[in-house]
Amino acid sequence: MHSINPIGIIHSELKRLEDCPKQENEGAPAATVEIYPAFAEAAKDIKPGDRIILLTWLHQSKRDTMVTRPRDNKNAKLTGVFSTRSPDRPNPIGLHISVVHSVKDNILKVAEIEVLDGTPVIDIKPYLER
Amino acid sequence: MHSINPIGIIHSELKRLEDCPKQENEGAPAATVEIYPAFAEAAKDIKPGDRIILLTWLHQSKRDTMVTRPRDNKNAKLTGVFSTRSPDRPNPIGLHISVVHSVKDNILKVAEIEVLDGTPVIDIKPYLER
Repeated sequence: MHSINPIGIIHSELKRLEDCPKQENEGAPAATVEIYPAFAEAAKDIKPGDRIILLTWLHQSKRDTMVTRPRDNKNAKLTGVFSTRSPDRPNPIGLHISVVHSVKDNILKVAEIEVLDGTPVIDIKPYLER
Repeated sequence: MHSINPIGIIHSELKRLEDCPKQENEGAPAATVEIYPAFAEAAKDIKPGDRIILLTWLHQSKRDTMVTRPRDNKNAKLTGVFSTRSPDRPNPIGLHISVVHSVKDNILKVAEIEVLDGTPVIDIKPYLER
């Protein structure tokens, strides 16, 4: 068992799970990433235009879900969650690719991501094309 | 504070930090992902040829590192870790893109990744092209 400490928090218009689109490209809104002061130095080189990977802690997820029907489609077959992007999974880490629109102090405005308001941010990495 | 429970472990020829290349494309070896039995059902649909994202817990990392010189280059400027892929970061989550070569029971053989032997695996996601 390891411990995760949030390094920031997401502010978004998505206030409830029911508001969330199933994929980022289906109409999610732009969001704000507030970096907590203790971690501001680690974010000091993030600039507008940077493509980033945000890792979040999907705090409303079920951690005992091992299989799911993708996209809540009742006709889909039960699929192991490691083959899906379901938020319900043993360690509910969200992975979101975004672009930084602006940076002011410890506040990043980023392009549309499918993340609920109040979701903890646990890491930010540069997005490197493969 | 949230708790992470490993869902598996990496077996690799990379036994020591000094053995690790700085990026996957610089000669890392193929590796084996052992999924723990409690999570085998979540991995049941992973098949040879699948492109996956492995999230690992970089257990030998320093968590109080906020700035680093990329690739240990003494001439590089001190850069906030959220703009680097340094394993030293507040929540030391490793993100590795790989391909599944074979699956036998709860053992996945995967293409070359830069991960130390014994590293905990915390999540597996499908890699979706953007």
